[in-house]
Formats: sequence, structure tokens, C-alpha cells
Amino acid sequence: MDRKALMESVQAQMSSRRWYHTEGVMSTAADLVKRYGGDPEQAELAVILHDVAKQWPVEKMAEAIREEGEYLEVLDHDKELWHAYAGAYAARRDYGITDPQVLDAIRFHTSGRPGMSHLEKIVWLADLIEPGRSFPLVSDIRELAEQSLEKAILAGLDTTILFLIEKGKRIYPLTLLARNNLILKEAEA
Amino acid sequence: MDRKALMESVQAQMSSRRWYHTEGVMSTAADLVKRYGGDPEQAELAVILHDVAKQWPVEKMAEAIREEGEYLEVLDHDKELWHAYAGAYAARRDYGITDPQVLDAIRFHTSGRPGMSHLEKIVWLADLIEPGRSFPLVSDIRELAEQSLEKAILAGLDTTILFLIEKGKRIYPLTLLARNNLILKEAEA
Repeated sequence: MDRKALMESVQAQMSSRRWYHTEGVMSTAADLVKRYGGDPEQAELAVILHDVAKQWPVEKMAEAIREEGEYLEVLDHDKELWHAYAGAYAARRDYGITDPQVLDAIRFHTSGRPGMSHLEKIVWLADLIEPGRSFPLVSDIRELAEQSLEKAILAGLDTTILFLIEKGKRIYPLTLLARNNLILKEAEA
Repeated sequence: MDRKALMESVQAQMSSRRWYHTEGVMSTAADLVKRYGGDPEQAELAVILHDVAKQWPVEKMAEAIREEGEYLEVLDHDKELWHAYAGAYAARRDYGITDPQVLDAIRFHTSGRPGMSHLEKIVWLADLIEPGRSFPLVSDIRELAEQSLEKAILAGLDTTILFLIEKGKRIYPLTLLARNNLILKEAEA
């Protein structure tokens, strides 16, 4: 499937607002690749597909995660996380993506994880700060993103955790481990 | 060793300020047991010993944790957590405590953990809110402690996590899992 057909097929599975978000992430990820390096085509592919399952019915997401079989623990956590794991499944099964780096960048684009690859970092951060986002600290994180990928992600993870605490919601352990891991690496650097 | 001799022996291993804290925890734990039930003697024993290793040299704490061998991962985390694990070791080896509930209450009195026992909850909370404590939200948590052990602990865990985020420090995974577990149980209740 060429780029245009892929984009049309993904776009057909979501609202125009959600697709508009994906376009924002594409542009931000391209900027981050220019600044920090990486393969622009690989990043673009992961970004086009990152939210492909976002508007699937919840039961369809759960089925995809169960069929993958490897990340079942996410089913015990917030449904907000499911679309990323279901998205990796869709990328592989429906779009024939085999590049494990692209699949992981889709899979961990919401939760994060310790030891994220460069591509995973680009997609995670671009998703958080694309121009359509408007949460309280987004401008601070955008500024940090011009200095350091890792510092910006750390600030983003902090914001995510603070938000969940404020809402009294559980925090996905991988998200915490992602934060711990970045702090440790920054301290070692 | 009788109660008096135990208290003197523990007191001898710490500053008067630290022992004053332990006395505060004893009184708060006794109040919590009156309100929420539990064995007052078991709680008192755990409290007397909870900080026995607090002022040990760091290397002595590390050695105790290595000798216990079961909780080595704590050595990769903040030294503030070590005294609790070293304290459980001291309670068993130096004071002949064999009650696993008392040892766990000492061991997890700082980190917390998912599925804390009633005794662990009493000691964890009493340690946080004893009269000598004076962090910003302590009076709110003291009020909550008159309504619900679990709600007070949850607020305490939130405060701990927020403090660590503010300081840019890593969060011990058990602390997060303790919080997630309480939220899940409150939702099921």
C-alpha cells in the first residue's frame, strides 16, 4: 500500500478531528527528526498508524490485545491505553507492517516504557505536543522539546502522572518505569 | 527482651529526635488501632522497631539487605527506603522477632506495597501523620485518617509521589503499585 492509500485507509477509520490530530503529530514528528535525527519515513509510518484503533469499539480493541496475547496486563488498566496496543496489532495484521521498531513506537506511544528507542521517543513526544494540544503545561514542554528530547519526555511523563493523581486514577506501571528510567539515564549522562 | 529493654535498646541506636518521632508513631498507631481494630501489642512492637536502622551507616543497611537477599531491587533505589528493609532484618536477627506480619509492617513502612495488611496500613499511616510531622498536607491526611484508613493512605501516597515528582526523583514501583491497588479496591468496594 502506498503512502496515499495508507493515509486514506487510516483516515477512514476515524473522525476528521482525530485525523487532524494525526496530521499535527506528523508535522511535529518531522520537526523532531530534523532536530534529533532518525529515519523520517519510519517515523511518518508509525505516526500515520499510531491512532488507527483509537475510535474502534472498546470490545474490538480488547479482542486485538487478547489475540496479540503479549500485553494482556493493559486490559486491567485504563481503556485510554488500549488503542495503542490494538493499533500495533492493526498495523501488523491490516497493513502488513513488520518493522518491530515501528510496531513498538505505535504500541508504546501512550504508556511509554523504560528504554524507549529513539523512534519511540519521537512518536511519544510528537503525540503529546502537536499543535492541536492545549493542556496547561504544553507550551513549557514544547520549549523543552527544542533543547532535549529526554527532558521534554520527562516533563510530559510528570504531567501525565500529575494529571492521573489529580483525577484519582491509577497510573500504568510502564509509565512510571519510563520516568524512572529517564531520570536514571539523565543522572548517568 | 521485655518492652522496656527493647525500647532502651532501640533508642540507643538513634538520636533523641528520631526516638521522639518513634514515640509519636506509637501514640498515633495506638489511636488508629482503637479506631480501626487490630492487635495493639503487635502494632506497638512493629512501631518500636520500625526505624531501628534509620541511622545506621548506609553500608550497614546495604549489607543487611544483601544478607536478607529477598529485596535486592531496593538497592537500586533511593537510600531513604533502605532503613525499612534493614530494620526488618535487625528486628529478626537482633531482636528475635519471628512474626512475619510485624516484619512486613517494618519492611514496607516507607515504600508501602499492594495488598498491605491491616497492620502494615496502621504502621505506614502512623509513621506519616504522627504529631511531629509538618509537611503541607499533613492536616488534611490527619482528618482523612478519622474517616478511612485507606483514603488517608491513598492521600499519603499521592503526597509522596507528588513530592518525588517535584524533586525530580524516581518513584519506587511498589509505592505506585500500592496506590493503584488501593484505588482498585476502593472502586470495587
